[in-house]
Amino acid sequence: MIGTEIPVLAVLCGDRRPPDMDAVEAAAEIRYTDEKGLPDALRGADALFVYDFLSTAVPGAWHAADRIRWVHIASAGVDPVMFPELRESDVVLTNSRGVFDDSIAEYVLGVVIAFAKDLPRSLELQRQRRWQHRESERVAGRRALVVGTGPIGRAIARLLRAAGLDVSGMGRRARGEDPDFGTVHASADLVRVAAGFDYVIAVAPLTDETKGMFDAAAFAAMKPSARFVNVGRGELVVTDELVTALRAGEIAGAALDVFDTEPLPVDHPLWTLDNVVISPHMSGDFVGWRNTLVEVFADNFARWRDGRPLRNVVDKQLGYVPSGH
Amino acid sequence: MIGTEIPVLAVLCGDRRPPDMDAVEAAAEIRYTDEKGLPDALRGADALFVYDFLSTAVPGAWHAADRIRWVHIASAGVDPVMFPELRESDVVLTNSRGVFDDSIAEYVLGVVIAFAKDLPRSLELQRQRRWQHRESERVAGRRALVVGTGPIGRAIARLLRAAGLDVSGMGRRARGEDPDFGTVHASADLVRVAAGFDYVIAVAPLTDETKGMFDAAAFAAMKPSARFVNVGRGELVVTDELVTALRAGEIAGAALDVFDTEPLPVDHPLWTLDNVVISPHMSGDFVGWRNTLVEVFADNFARWRDGRPLRNVVDKQLGYVPSGH
Repeated sequence: MIGTEIPVLAVLCGDRRPPDMDAVEAAAEIRYTDEKGLPDALRGADALFVYDFLSTAVPGAWHAADRIRWVHIASAGVDPVMFPELRESDVVLTNSRGVFDDSIAEYVLGVVIAFAKDLPRSLELQRQRRWQHRESERVAGRRALVVGTGPIGRAIARLLRAAGLDVSGMGRRARGEDPDFGTVHASADLVRVAAGFDYVIAVAPLTDETKGMFDAAAFAAMKPSARFVNVGRGELVVTDELVTALRAGEIAGAALDVFDTEPLPVDHPLWTLDNVVISPHMSGDFVGWRNTLVEVFADNFARWRDGRPLRNVVDKQLGYVPSGH
Repeated sequence: MIGTEIPVLAVLCGDRRPPDMDAVEAAAEIRYTDEKGLPDALRGADALFVYDFLSTAVPGAWHAADRIRWVHIASAGVDPVMFPELRESDVVLTNSRGVFDDSIAEYVLGVVIAFAKDLPRSLELQRQRRWQHRESERVAGRRALVVGTGPIGRAIARLLRAAGLDVSGMGRRARGEDPDFGTVHASADLVRVAAGFDYVIAVAPLTDETKGMFDAAAFAAMKPSARFVNVGRGELVVTDELVTALRAGEIAGAALDVFDTEPLPVDHPLWTLDNVVISPHMSGDFVGWRNTLVEVFADNFARWRDGRPLRNVVDKQLGYVPSGH
């Protein structure tokens, strides 16, 4: 926007208000709200900051958004706001691309090495005070497929390669000579190429095309020694089929940071499989991440106030920020 | 040796005979033995292969070694054969330098990331089916001190640096501009420099100078947020003082692969400290390591038969293979 009017900004945050909002507060009328108050907060608002990025309340409150022109979400994945009314509107959508890249990459390398060195078993034996020598796997030379060629996938590819793994990518379209991935396979070829990899890492955006792409056929196509890592979205996976594949030994293990239902229900079978590592949607959340998320938003807010181009503009047809933007 | 005589080779291996010994067996009279039979096996033997590298039986049997000219040990650390009679003799001692370097480096990077990402706690919460989000630490930019500048320490330094850590080394003498470490501090300065590091990694050879170097004063000098990693020898550490430091919160955690008593006794307090990761002296033992150890020995055996220079000749005064040899 350009003008002298003070804009009205709705901030969906529930009880946990974003830190470091002073600069934004000085330049906007801010309506901090929880899910229940969202329709009232949206009525007459110019922009919406979805700070509570796990909330699914935006579609249901959207009927009240009578003058919104910009929505920003404090996450990399934009699937919680990918509903038809927003998608087909002129509202500009931006995300927090870049904040989580390197932290998630470190998490992925950590679980890869943990699998190779049998660290979960060492911790279990330690609990039992049992000294039981095992041989471990090398990491260098193992092959990893990173499914998702956005900035997080690229950071993962670079770090795994630095640790000696042989990395390929998977995206919408096949291509060669990618600077981070070398070869990029097409997602449509997952079942055909999966057998070639020791680690398959899911970090694709959740779209109509990627939803459920890791299903029984995909797991059956992987090596029995393969490990599956999900740092993308739970809905990329047909969870029941993953459980079946793990129980049947079709793959050797999984490290899961995201789930189709979060928190993972207490009676879910994934909790108890001994070849699974579960973490509670935290792989990217380094100390200081909330401040960084607000920095990214505040930078875009200043741009929006000044009429300058926004950063991280989502292609609402693709469902993510296209590369090079 | 050079000559037409068939040499006699004693192999200390207990019940577990080394694999892939065909080439050596074709060129020597081999006496496979356990600790009890070692004196008889040594009597009249030309060479000794200490395949059971954790055995401490060699000094007690050495009185029977009446014509030994070469001892090879299937490990990087040579402390089990660093007794005065061997040290002061003309017997050549070689080790298995190089076999474990990259595997141990992967283990070290794995525990560093596991600490940063709070992986042990995630596994404990998983056992309790508890979903509890925590913020995690970044790995990139953290400072690591690798104590020990041999080939294993160098492999650790290179891999940690590849993962974005800022790495320094510590050796007998201070020096700058080292290709792997940049700055190398002198061991004598441990207490003075320890406060500058987030991770302190012990991989020094066990010698009179390094024994017990990680003591109360060293741990007190480290940051309260520091983690200590030992992949060298248990005796580098004053274990009781490490336990005290961990309990007092003088350091934040430890990952220990080696102990002054192995197996670690079942009633040892280290088993139960929740900021400790214990593994049973396995960090270097990748699938295939036993074959690789025999390859290294067999190569040296062929050299010895032919009168060619041996690889990995230990400086018996230093207690390790000097760099550049």
